[in-house]
Amino acid sequence: MARLRVGVLISGRGSNLQALIDACAEPSFPAEIVLVVSNEAAAQGLSRAHAAGIPTRVVPHRDYPDRARFDAALDAVLREAAVELVCLAGFMRLLGDAFVNAWRDRLINIHPALLPAFKGLHTHERALAAGVRLHGCTVHFVRPAMDEGPIIVQGAVPVLPDDTPETLAARVLAVEHRAYPLALRLIAEGRVRVERERALVDAAAPGSTLLNPDG
Amino acid sequence: MARLRVGVLISGRGSNLQALIDACAEPSFPAEIVLVVSNEAAAQGLSRAHAAGIPTRVVPHRDYPDRARFDAALDAVLREAAVELVCLAGFMRLLGDAFVNAWRDRLINIHPALLPAFKGLHTHERALAAGVRLHGCTVHFVRPAMDEGPIIVQGAVPVLPDDTPETLAARVLAVEHRAYPLALRLIAEGRVRVERERALVDAAAPGSTLLNPDG
Repeated sequence: MARLRVGVLISGRGSNLQALIDACAEPSFPAEIVLVVSNEAAAQGLSRAHAAGIPTRVVPHRDYPDRARFDAALDAVLREAAVELVCLAGFMRLLGDAFVNAWRDRLINIHPALLPAFKGLHTHERALAAGVRLHGCTVHFVRPAMDEGPIIVQGAVPVLPDDTPETLAARVLAVEHRAYPLALRLIAEGRVRVERERALVDAAAPGSTLLNPDG
Repeated sequence: MARLRVGVLISGRGSNLQALIDACAEPSFPAEIVLVVSNEAAAQGLSRAHAAGIPTRVVPHRDYPDRARFDAALDAVLREAAVELVCLAGFMRLLGDAFVNAWRDRLINIHPALLPAFKGLHTHERALAAGVRLHGCTVHFVRPAMDEGPIIVQGAVPVLPDDTPETLAARVLAVEHRAYPLALRLIAEGRVRVERERALVDAAAPGSTLLNPDG
């Protein structure tokens, strides 16, 4: 069976990109990364792609007069590579509604919190300030509203009494590195469908909940 | 060492009351239930208290002209029994600010959701509608605003593809029955302090996060 053709958008170090690269390196994995796109020429994630022999493109947002034209350039490189699913992995530009709607249900993101709690930035600081005992990550289909959209996978970790934003971030990152490949696998295997804005996962699939007691 | 004197407020079947009764039945448990109060004479939870030899009081809210006088009657029976900590366990009356403030940091509640997500009623239906992959319960100190207040323990369970509100409620209830006794133990052992509206748990304590992979 043909593997799902995936494009990954990055802006920085690309640690989630690496988790996806590692998953796709398994011959039995049902998806392959055919393109990595960065809006920053200096993104470390580009080196990870090179090391894995994956084609890369740099689309510098500063080269475009507005978001619509930047988004159109992204769209063009993704279509040129016959990308079927786009994964955001630390991509730090907001995408416009036209792009998001054109890729509806074929565009996913990972957010470092258990949505619907803690949308937006600085999630680890905010989770500590709120005193929650559980924190984690969410992989979801992207919608025009930030950090909205049908949830595909969530992964939870404990918050410990001595946590700082840094120690908590590291624990969440470990579960992110399991959650994103799992979400990609579920989609590539055709086990996820969106109905009334909920992502329903085939009941026979491996669970779409990750509980990481030790991080 | 003297055991912490606990009063439990109920309105109905009292399944969380039973979990607390069972925990306190252990001779080494650091708390004892000295009074169960119901605002409903027909509450099944009263029979659970009788079966365990625990004194009960019925304070029917309909007998009082307003909330302030009902709250004052509750306060009186709790003080008469020298209660040191009040646990709400399916108590279906809203308590006024005067009562809540009088018992500040000595009044706890269990809410069937992972706060700050899903405050209020019908949490299981709402969690299913939102498509979250994790749901659970929160034990917290009570504040005048509903379902606010420093978090003591949270327990998480997976949401499964075939879940109905009923199957999800049952899975959450199982972790509630672990979370509430754990919170009571942590408080009774003096391991919880509230600082800047966060409940800090002694780092040497057993964790205050419960992850129930199988419910």
